[in-house]
Order: sequence, then structure tokens, then C-alpha cells
Amino acid sequence: MSNVKKVVQCVPNFSEGRDLDKVERIINPFRGKEGVKLLDYSTDFDHNRAVVTVVGEPEAVKHAVIEAMRIAIEEIDMTKHEGQHPRMGAIDVVPFIPIKNMTMEEAVELAKEVGKEAWEKYNLPIFLYEKAASNPERENLATVRKGQFEGMAEKVKAPEWAPDFGNGEIHPTAGITAVGARMPLVAFNVNLDSPTLEIANKIAKNVRHLSGGLRYCKGIGIELKERGIVQVSMNMTDYTKTALYRAFELIKIEARRYGVNVIGSEIIGLLPMEALIDTAVYYLGVEDFSMDQVLEYRMME
Amino acid sequence: MSNVKKVVQCVPNFSEGRDLDKVERIINPFRGKEGVKLLDYSTDFDHNRAVVTVVGEPEAVKHAVIEAMRIAIEEIDMTKHEGQHPRMGAIDVVPFIPIKNMTMEEAVELAKEVGKEAWEKYNLPIFLYEKAASNPERENLATVRKGQFEGMAEKVKAPEWAPDFGNGEIHPTAGITAVGARMPLVAFNVNLDSPTLEIANKIAKNVRHLSGGLRYCKGIGIELKERGIVQVSMNMTDYTKTALYRAFELIKIEARRYGVNVIGSEIIGLLPMEALIDTAVYYLGVEDFSMDQVLEYRMME
Repeated sequence: MSNVKKVVQCVPNFSEGRDLDKVERIINPFRGKEGVKLLDYSTDFDHNRAVVTVVGEPEAVKHAVIEAMRIAIEEIDMTKHEGQHPRMGAIDVVPFIPIKNMTMEEAVELAKEVGKEAWEKYNLPIFLYEKAASNPERENLATVRKGQFEGMAEKVKAPEWAPDFGNGEIHPTAGITAVGARMPLVAFNVNLDSPTLEIANKIAKNVRHLSGGLRYCKGIGIELKERGIVQVSMNMTDYTKTALYRAFELIKIEARRYGVNVIGSEIIGLLPMEALIDTAVYYLGVEDFSMDQVLEYRMME
Repeated sequence: MSNVKKVVQCVPNFSEGRDLDKVERIINPFRGKEGVKLLDYSTDFDHNRAVVTVVGEPEAVKHAVIEAMRIAIEEIDMTKHEGQHPRMGAIDVVPFIPIKNMTMEEAVELAKEVGKEAWEKYNLPIFLYEKAASNPERENLATVRKGQFEGMAEKVKAPEWAPDFGNGEIHPTAGITAVGARMPLVAFNVNLDSPTLEIANKIAKNVRHLSGGLRYCKGIGIELKERGIVQVSMNMTDYTKTALYRAFELIKIEARRYGVNVIGSEIIGLLPMEALIDTAVYYLGVEDFSMDQVLEYRMME
């Protein structure tokens, strides 16, 4: 059977994590639609945020996202929003991730179409970010979002922060949205048998790209207070180039310096099967392995 | 979206590996059918055998298999068949493997339906084997097939080897077929940096179930002459209970006795993604991992 259907993933983040009825209404366009599959969503009260994962055919996903954005604009008033997570809009960020038979360029194109349509239909201004960014300054979401909702009305007046779609103003209640394209992220945390945050931070610095480590790895130290241990908390930003096992083995090596051991790890949320299959193939030393040998099904619970 | 569609895998083995036009005609019923997907097929000249892997909805797969059996009976004359692989029929063996939303009992039921229909429609006698076996003596395919095509006419006359569907005779040109249900097999070979077959055989004996090793592991030593090394060649008969990493680590441990090292491995043919994901989760020490976190897609080549 032919296999040329394009598949894109989209992980929109909405600034509502407390009123679950509102969240249900916002994600409703992702349910029961031909060509769109709602894979997962989670809400966090403290963050006051919902993170949604959908996959499907690019056109179908685009239409569903545009519709969910319309509902989020109606339901969420950012002038009343509070939460721990940084945010600048009712729809805070909309990343598109090419999954199958699709190039990054096509995902960038899709991001631009969504940004343009959201501006033209809803008067919602848009920053393009990551691979869709119009200049390197806008690649990093944290830089784009700096100032958050409260500072955005001022920020967008500066010529260097003029929205990619929009005029000199933000949407009065929905703020502004970052739309972009990127590789799938893997949230991978490695636990150490030490209570000392400083050690986790030092190891994170050695492993992450920013301070001299692996190209597609972001990381910080985190305390797990109830367990009395610390953790190197990472975002693997391109597992096809920086493998999970490489970060894991490097952390083991760095930990030796401090007489500390790696005692386990966590994978938060979803990840592509390949990220783990690649790791298994490494540890078993499998020669000449091809992803075509993998049957995509599950029997285990 | 609901996910209750049952999926079964079937790996019929046909006794034709030389005339590829014949093979094409035999596997034709697996192509372009609603509810049936031809995943893979391979032929081997020396074995004179074709191994086909299909998945799909149980009813659709059943009808396609019955149709392929009809064509194989027309195309293959076992009185003229020669090849290195043991075989007793034109359709030598038809295992059903429950993949999704399906119990082993349902796969056994499907095997019995196929066996009954093949006998009633084509006069092809059937042994039920593995999980579908009518007694423990018939579980092991090698035991069932002993005597091969040439000895089968005699064998089936003994009351203890009366076919599960059939009378006291084999099909004159198509012989007899084993139909059964089983777990997916993983063909997993581990390479050693030694030219000594005896060492691979000794390790295989310690790792395999038959002689005191792991419950769901079969194994023998093999020489890879061109490379000047030996290999422990295994069939993992239930990876959900005997994990790949367990056999791999055990071989490493046994190899130490002989001052020999594990230098790599091979996975032959297809395997379920879970078998490797479970291995990655072990080596990374991932806590609280769930298969529901896995996105079944591929970006790597």
C-alpha cells in the first residue's frame, strides 16, 4: 500500500489550566475530525495552562487549530490570567512538527499559513519562531516571549519586535501568539543519588549545548525534595542528532567527578518510538539495523 | 477516536523460493485488500521457501490467507520440491499472532477456523500447533513436522498423528499444513570475538530454555565463516516475558568464562517496537514508563 500521506504534529499551548470546561471547549475541534487525531492533552493548575498534542494531515490539522484558536480567543481573557508558566497570549504557542513524508520547510510553510490566517480572521498578532523565525533573534521562544503578556503591548511597538503578522498592537484580551516549526522534543530527566542541587547544575552545564555540551540538549538542575535527590532535567531538541543514550552516558561520566551515581531517569510526556529504539540498538550493539524492521504495535500493558 | 479494532498478524510460509512469478501469484491475495496489509515477504533459493508477513483485521486476513492457500495448492507440487529447510506441505506453516485488542484465545480460534476451512474446501489436512495444539505433543512445530513431506503419508496413519482436520491421508501434491497461534518471535543473534564454534554452542546452551536458561529463549551456536567469528543465534519466543536485554547481558556474563567478548548483535527480519523500547527503558533506567508515552512514527532513515 502506498504511504505518501503527509503527517504533521501540532502541540498548541493554551493559557487555561483551571476551568476544565473551557479547556474541553477549546480542544473540541480536535475531536472526531477526519484526518485529525487528538493524541494527548494535559492541564496544570499552577501553570494555568493546557498542552495539547494532535497529529494528522496538514490541511486538516491546520483547520482544526485555526478553529481551536478562535474558541480560545473567546474563552480566555489574558488581562485576568495568572499562572507560574511564562505566557504572552491566550494561545501562547503553536509549534508544528513534521512527522512523516514531510520536510521541515513544509512545516514552516504551514506555520506561516496559520499565522497569516489567525491575523486576518481574528486580529491576533503572530510571531513566527524556531525554524519559521524571520530572523535569528526570533528563533528562541524564551526571547520572543520575554516581557510576557503584561509587557507585550509595549514590546511590539519597537520596530525590531514588530509581529510577523499584525500591526503595532496586541489583541486586547488574547495578547499575541508564537507560531513555528520545530523538531519533536523529548523531555528527559536523569536522577542522581545526591541531595545537592549544585552538583546537578554543574552536570547540566557540562551536558547542555549552551555551555559547551551536546548540540541538541538543553538542561538545568532540579531538586526532587520529597525524595531528597537532585535531577538533571533536559529537553532533547533533536533526538535524531543528539541521541538520548549519549546524554545519559555523558551524565554518568560527569557524575563520577562528584562521587555521585545515576540512579534512574524519567521521560515526561510523549516521545517518538525512534528515540528509544535508537537507544536500544546502541546498547545491544545491533549491526545493520533499519527502522523498516520495526512493527509499530504494542502488546505490553 | 476509538481504538477497538482487532489486529492479527499472520506469517504463512510457502514451499516456493525459486520461481518468483509463482510466489507473486501466491501472495497476490494479500495486496490491495481492505483490512489486510502485506508488511514483508522474503524468498530463499537454498531453502526454496517464501516467508510472508501480513497484518490486519482477523476476518479480512483469514479470507486472504485461505485464498493464498488455494493458489499455493495449485502452484506447488511437493512431490518435486527440494530445499534445505524442513517442510511438509505446499503451505508449510500458518501461524497467527495476536497484535492488538485481541487475546491469544481469539488467535487460536482463528487458526482453527482457517484449518477447518482449508480441509473442507481443499481437502488439505491440518495439524494445529503451538497455542492451538490439541495436545502438548503437537505444540512444537519441529516435532509435528518430523518426517517431512516424504514421511507424512505414513506418519498420519498412526492414531497419535491423525490430523486435527483431515482423514488418514495427506494431500497428494500439497502434503499437510500446520496452522497455529503464537506470540511474535524475535530472531536475535549475538556476535562473539572468537572463531570457536564450541564456545558459541556452550553459551547458547546456558542461555536457552531447553538446557537450563531463560524461559522464552531458543538458541544455537553458528559460525560466521567469512568474518572468522561465531554467534549465539536465538529465537526469543515471548519478548514480553524474556526481554532481549536479559539474554544479551547473560551472554556477556557467560562469555567471560572463555575470555571472549560480545562485539555486536543482529536482529533478523521484523520485530515489535516494544521489544526494543523495553530494552531502552531498561538501559536508561526510566522510572514509571508507560507504552502510552510512545508516538508510533519515524523520522530517521
